[in-house]
Amino acid sequence: MHKCSMERMTDKIESFSRFGDAGHGGVTRYTLSAEDILAREEFVKRMEAIGATIEVDDVANMYATLPGSDPDAKRIVMASHSDSVKNGGNYDGILGVISAMEVLETVAAQETPHKHPLTAMIWTNEEGSLYPPAMMVSGIVCYDHLPEGIRGSFKYEDLMKSKSVLDGEQTFGMALEKSGYKGDKKFRLSPDRYKAMFEIHIEQGPILEDAGNDVGVVDCVLGMFNYRFRFYGQTVHAGTFPMSKRKDALYAASQTICFLHEEIDKLGHPELVYTTGEIVCHPCVHTCVPDYVDFCIDVRHEDPEVLDKVLAIVKGCTEKEWAGCRCEVEKMWNRDTVYWDKELVGYIKAAAEETGVSHQVIHSGAGHDAQFASYMLPSAMIFVQSRDGLSHCEPEYSSAEHCTEGANLLLNAVLKLDGVAPSK
Amino acid sequence: MHKCSMERMTDKIESFSRFGDAGHGGVTRYTLSAEDILAREEFVKRMEAIGATIEVDDVANMYATLPGSDPDAKRIVMASHSDSVKNGGNYDGILGVISAMEVLETVAAQETPHKHPLTAMIWTNEEGSLYPPAMMVSGIVCYDHLPEGIRGSFKYEDLMKSKSVLDGEQTFGMALEKSGYKGDKKFRLSPDRYKAMFEIHIEQGPILEDAGNDVGVVDCVLGMFNYRFRFYGQTVHAGTFPMSKRKDALYAASQTICFLHEEIDKLGHPELVYTTGEIVCHPCVHTCVPDYVDFCIDVRHEDPEVLDKVLAIVKGCTEKEWAGCRCEVEKMWNRDTVYWDKELVGYIKAAAEETGVSHQVIHSGAGHDAQFASYMLPSAMIFVQSRDGLSHCEPEYSSAEHCTEGANLLLNAVLKLDGVAPSK
Repeated sequence: MHKCSMERMTDKIESFSRFGDAGHGGVTRYTLSAEDILAREEFVKRMEAIGATIEVDDVANMYATLPGSDPDAKRIVMASHSDSVKNGGNYDGILGVISAMEVLETVAAQETPHKHPLTAMIWTNEEGSLYPPAMMVSGIVCYDHLPEGIRGSFKYEDLMKSKSVLDGEQTFGMALEKSGYKGDKKFRLSPDRYKAMFEIHIEQGPILEDAGNDVGVVDCVLGMFNYRFRFYGQTVHAGTFPMSKRKDALYAASQTICFLHEEIDKLGHPELVYTTGEIVCHPCVHTCVPDYVDFCIDVRHEDPEVLDKVLAIVKGCTEKEWAGCRCEVEKMWNRDTVYWDKELVGYIKAAAEETGVSHQVIHSGAGHDAQFASYMLPSAMIFVQSRDGLSHCEPEYSSAEHCTEGANLLLNAVLKLDGVAPSK
Repeated sequence: MHKCSMERMTDKIESFSRFGDAGHGGVTRYTLSAEDILAREEFVKRMEAIGATIEVDDVANMYATLPGSDPDAKRIVMASHSDSVKNGGNYDGILGVISAMEVLETVAAQETPHKHPLTAMIWTNEEGSLYPPAMMVSGIVCYDHLPEGIRGSFKYEDLMKSKSVLDGEQTFGMALEKSGYKGDKKFRLSPDRYKAMFEIHIEQGPILEDAGNDVGVVDCVLGMFNYRFRFYGQTVHAGTFPMSKRKDALYAASQTICFLHEEIDKLGHPELVYTTGEIVCHPCVHTCVPDYVDFCIDVRHEDPEVLDKVLAIVKGCTEKEWAGCRCEVEKMWNRDTVYWDKELVGYIKAAAEETGVSHQVIHSGAGHDAQFASYMLPSAMIFVQSRDGLSHCEPEYSSAEHCTEGANLLLNAVLKLDGVAPSK
């Protein structure tokens, strides 16, 4: 079995944690910000130090490639993103970049024979925290290969106009021009030049930790749907309007959220997750009964039949009045379960068994760039245990041991796919 | 019985509706805005036309006074506000100003004998829509007379620093200087120069309309309290975190809102009103379980014992976890029921009976400037029927007939207090 260096991994985790350090153990590193550019410079510096060639495509994705022995072989790419959410942690995204760098550094240091060029890649703007949407740039790059229902959201021209949520003025296109990282479209990830993609990511959930497993072999990204609930009531004065005649949209929404929990839980699917994370209330004044409230529900499960059962509950909510208010629901988006490439998953499993790391098969509930890439290239993912399952927050943590075990798994799986180096 | 002119009332309602006309039947007329200044100029023009003397105090309150026969008699003031909420209606506030003007115009036109000077007054910034809080300026003027628990919120120096909710920069003090309506503090409403205050206001509820009564003789402003609920959970990823381990602050808040409705309704007080009008959710992202939600509850009833029962339910909510979240409650403010001056209420009732207008005794659920004035001067209020009970919105409507009936009632009650003119 081939082994990465925990010392090098630790050094990289610490180095990249400085770029956007928000002073409380985490980072704010918006895509193409000054902090993100420091991270990109560090990537270039370290990759050039091992003799990798750097390419940058027209949407600022970066590719560091070590040549393989076969000049005609397609590249194997390991990729994740360098941007974070506001006050995010030191692992979400960047761990996948660091792990890819570590694989290249190990191969370079140990002069591991390999046939295919090996590429460590940074995806631009996965989080979409400053310029929505999330997975913007993998959406752009994989556009031609995306299913019809998803594609519409990822038109290059539209996304260049995505405005900063901070100032509402600077667009993603302007940030790209200013960044100095607008390269050449010909370097974009494509099936012509790339054979397969791997992505390491923190789990963002407590399943591995609860099971005592260090890493996860991901088999799929769960199917999901997102629906918007809207409630229409009537604003009246809090002090003067009798309760019996009110049409209170916030009370309506509260009743519906409780109803959804009761009814969905009755379905009895412990792996089903659903979230009402966002709510808007109008006019949102303490002396006014709200006349309009909306919230969204995000529902995820592997089995489309289970999703359909939940959808029936969601749609059923429109059939009655809630606290005197009319209820509408509207689909925002959905996706079918995306299964990772079986051959790649097999290599990861085999590598996990060889290395003896504690592992299990796991689903991904969250979306990742690899998911869009999978419509274009064989793709697969590895999860690393997250402490308390926390992510998108400063306490996000994965130990250097677990991160290194993840990198080992990636290294061995990549070499199995490459097919030249013996397993040792 | 003395009678106002419906023709003049209609003309004033129409004229003032133009100042801030938002194009959908209502107005946006923030205090001291260009639109409010147009309304103030109209007030001056019309009041000077009948020989009234104009005074402006240091917080832009305006006083138009017709002298009475006794040079030593204190003034009787009729007052309300000229500002509106955003996209408010043509009656809330301004109807009280128009009615006061109409009383003076009627007395002047009919040369009605009266002993006390009669004053029509505009209060500045009752809504607090641009520069919070509501009732800011009556709070400032009545400061020395306010109960201890209320007074703290109305310090002149603090309120001059209240910032515009639109730009977060201009303060109320700056707007006052710029307006040209910063007059002399010696003109402020005070018990030394004023005998009593009357205020006409639209009902802002459907009680008069439902009962088929055109006007209301208000006996009190309901006691109330406002408490803030806060729920502390944990943000985790919507797609990856098992339901059983979540601490979802929005679900917690929804459960609590439903619980409050159930428990408070069990108390069985049909006149009790309570409202959860404002909610804040963090991080309010569709892919994150909310870790923090707060909402406020506004509760109003005449009887302090009923309010205490509701408060016990509110406080009881902190004794258990809601959807895994800790719950805190905090008092924002409260007030005891304020009863209007019995003598003045008696004059209004007697006038209502004389004029034969359909009327009833009614409580005020909302706060009004007259409420703060009542700590300083004998005060009372008259309500005019609101169509569908709507207010603080563009469809707000009271018919010219009902508005004129209200003005008649005010005229006759004022003359009864004055004590000179025969009832006719």
